[in-house]
Amino acid sequence: MSIAAFCGSFDPITKGHLDIIERASKMFEEVYVFILSNSNKNSYFSFEQRMHWLEQACAHLENVHCQVQEGLSVEACKSVNATVLVRGIRNTVDFEYEKNIASMNLLLDESIETICLFTRDEYAHCSSSNVKELLKYGKDISRLVPECVAKEISK
Amino acid sequence: MSIAAFCGSFDPITKGHLDIIERASKMFEEVYVFILSNSNKNSYFSFEQRMHWLEQACAHLENVHCQVQEGLSVEACKSVNATVLVRGIRNTVDFEYEKNIASMNLLLDESIETICLFTRDEYAHCSSSNVKELLKYGKDISRLVPECVAKEISK
Amino acid sequence: MSIAAFCGSFDPITKGHLDIIERASKMFEEVYVFILSNSNKNSYFSFEQRMHWLEQACAHLENVHCQVQEGLSVEACKSVNATVLVRGIRNTVDFEYEKNIASMNLLLDESIETICLFTRDEYAHCSSSNVKELLKYGKDISRLVPECVAKEISK
Amino acid sequence: MSIAAFCGSFDPITKGHLDIIERASKMFEEVYVFILSNSNKNSYFSFEQRMHWLEQACAHLENVHCQVQEGLSVEACKSVNATVLVRGIRNTVDFEYEKNIASMNLLLDESIETICLFTRDEYAHCSSSNVKELLKYGKDISRLVPECVAKEISK
Amino acid sequence: MSIAAFCGSFDPITKGHLDIIERASKMFEEVYVFILSNSNKNSYFSFEQRMHWLEQACAHLENVHCQVQEGLSVEACKSVNATVLVRGIRNTVDFEYEKNIASMNLLLDESIETICLFTRDEYAHCSSSNVKELLKYGKDISRLVPECVAKEISK
Amino acid sequence: MSIAAFCGSFDPITKGHLDIIERASKMFEEVYVFILSNSNKNSYFSFEQRMHWLEQACAHLENVHCQVQEGLSVEACKSVNATVLVRGIRNTVDFEYEKNIASMNLLLDESIETICLFTRDEYAHCSSSNVKELLKYGKDISRLVPECVAKEISK
Repeated sequence: MSIAAFCGSFDPITKGHLDIIERASKMFEEVYVFILSNSNKNSYFSFEQRMHWLEQACAHLENVHCQVQEGLSVEACKSVNATVLVRGIRNTVDFEYEKNIASMNLLLDESIETICLFTRDEYAHCSSSNVKELLKYGKDISRLVPECVAKEISK
Repeated sequence: MSIAAFCGSFDPITKGHLDIIERASKMFEEVYVFILSNSNKNSYFSFEQRMHWLEQACAHLENVHCQVQEGLSVEACKSVNATVLVRGIRNTVDFEYEKNIASMNLLLDESIETICLFTRDEYAHCSSSNVKELLKYGKDISRLVPECVAKEISK
Repeated sequence: MSIAAFCGSFDPITKGHLDIIERASKMFEEVYVFILSNSNKNSYFSFEQRMHWLEQACAHLENVHCQVQEGLSVEACKSVNATVLVRGIRNTVDFEYEKNIASMNLLLDESIETICLFTRDEYAHCSSSNVKELLKYGKDISRLVPECVAKEISK
Repeated sequence: MSIAAFCGSFDPITKGHLDIIERASKMFEEVYVFILSNSNKNSYFSFEQRMHWLEQACAHLENVHCQVQEGLSVEACKSVNATVLVRGIRNTVDFEYEKNIASMNLLLDESIETICLFTRDEYAHCSSSNVKELLKYGKDISRLVPECVAKEISK
Repeated sequence: MSIAAFCGSFDPITKGHLDIIERASKMFEEVYVFILSNSNKNSYFSFEQRMHWLEQACAHLENVHCQVQEGLSVEACKSVNATVLVRGIRNTVDFEYEKNIASMNLLLDESIETICLFTRDEYAHCSSSNVKELLKYGKDISRLVPECVAKEISK
Repeated sequence: MSIAAFCGSFDPITKGHLDIIERASKMFEEVYVFILSNSNKNSYFSFEQRMHWLEQACAHLENVHCQVQEGLSVEACKSVNATVLVRGIRNTVDFEYEKNIASMNLLLDESIETICLFTRDEYAHCSSSNVKELLKYGKDISRLVPECVAKEISK
């Protein structure tokens, strides 16, 4: 039985994130989604807000659990006995970035395996950065984020 | 319980292939390794030879099963109830290639998920093409292939 | 008034090709679609068949004209006074390939400009190679090619 | 008749920018060059200075018009009825970046098309960042920027 | 007789840096390693600390000399009559970055040649950024840095 | 004292090749240019023709020597005591290709170091493939190849 983890800032959770979570939830017994409490990049939304949306968006997935991440990703994995770290990759720049992170994580803990899912073409532009860029200009973001997020933000 | 498949020509199996198979065998309940009987690229070694080496190299992995692949990868998956197709990626050229294949496979069968593992740095050069290039010049290939293959070829 | 050209083997025309042609037809006064009579790569479909499908697929676009290409792309452009050569790019491997071709074309004729359109995400996998791969295995290709092509092939 | 837009910080305008503008001016009836008043990245030169150089550098191009950009690129396009957004691409990192922006813009306004021109090899290094790096060390920048800019800066 | 230079922040020196220095020291008569006194990026370790470690790590290489760099890399080269600037490249993102820098340097001084060495696979993850990330979380860095650095930091 | 080697098909030698050879000749005491007698890819020009042009093009470089290559590149290096293998890289696809070859060569002989020079922007399109493509259509190739080659071919 394999347990997987998916770590991120989810600032906010996008349709792209949710798609990866749903796909992982079909492959693994349990999926722990870790949300960084203190991201390096100052977060746009508060931790509480981000966690609230993450939980709402994942509510329909029985084997998905949302948790706070304090330390490194491999430590988060350890804390829930996850042996698989799931990542989404959109393009070659992501690829080079993730390859480095995966090498580092291997160094930290050989028992944790990184796997990559290709971002679905229809979600290629659904990044949190894009959401924030659109919000800055008061634009509609409903096609980028789960319905629950879109509803609350539009208010 | 998830079943995974790993498809290839294995002409011949390399340490890089074996590493991916071993890592997949830890993540999934069963791993089916499919070997193409008629590869597009004319194979260097006969099907029997390639299958023999594959089986020897995987003999220590209880949940790994070697099988012939006749049709498409998604059909091979279906035949053994695999829902996960495992691929190894070394670099950005591989990435673009695999992204296209994964899109195609998704089109053919939405229930089968492609996941990518980063080729370990120490196996980056362990491709079947490199093995064949070295053999062409009568060079030692023992650092590229599993011991059982190296032994037989050196004879 | 600018005239554009779009050159290819169209073996067969895909939804991706058609999308590029439609987008170009909005930007330029006239768009000439050139189909190589003798492609380097032996074509899967006959020239007549490829041309027939191309013409059918573009029939709704008044400013689009289908023509045979015998020589180099820049010569095809010259023959219809096109000053813009349109190309579709899917990924970084395409990018490096097209950049080289564009440099060559510039060398051959400085008056012809190459422009690139990003392949729409939903058509990323709609290449002629993918169509042919699917046909080889008797698979449905209706989501990759224009309706007129899908209908005739399914027969 | 197609109208194109080219947006940037032009901090300062380089020979690379000017080359793209000149090439676009040959392809489209009118080209609007938009200069961001408040770039995300704090600009090195004042808005007035940047606009002054842009106007001087484009003075010989009758169908090119320089304007201030306040909002998003697609809004700038709308304001002048431009349906084509022109971008220059140097390399694969640019490619991945521009692909994302183009997807976003498509989402915001389907009627505006992004086209990419390959940066000419001889201008590959003519970026505003490179100009500023050279200025920081008091180096000659005359090969990177239009003559009018080089003259004023050398003073 | 060729003299080479290798410039960096060395914040701190890693096994990857040292490998490049050792390989360069075999190819060229003299190798000058320049350490930026004031890096753009605020350094994590003091200049004195970085220089101390650099000197210790290179102590066994007779033709390697450590020096302070105040200005541009090409000026550093000039100051010691180096005609070759050595760079290490790990991946395609590095490649695009280094290609730009090399073009710039060529512009500044045509007599100085940039050469690239591929980072050895086993050192692919040995970047200063990775070291600092691990230190932030109190992790062991001994596999990323030369022994002398590891020893002092572990204290 | 370092000796370098540069291996290729030189089918035919281009301005890009010659530029790399000239730059290498400034960095190393001796440069051996090896020309494959039997390339994998069937050569367009005869071995004698390719060697003749190579020798003519390099005649002005005193420390450059042209030789036949029969086996692997590392063996060619060994035969002349070269410890450095020089390669030119144009783009990211080249990069991934060369990285693999360099890993292989390291495996074959640890004492031989691969270095890469960035192809100068003005020679980016000067590949032998491009030359042959142009020749196929009877086009002028004088801007892609050394003068001696252009003269003889134009006859």
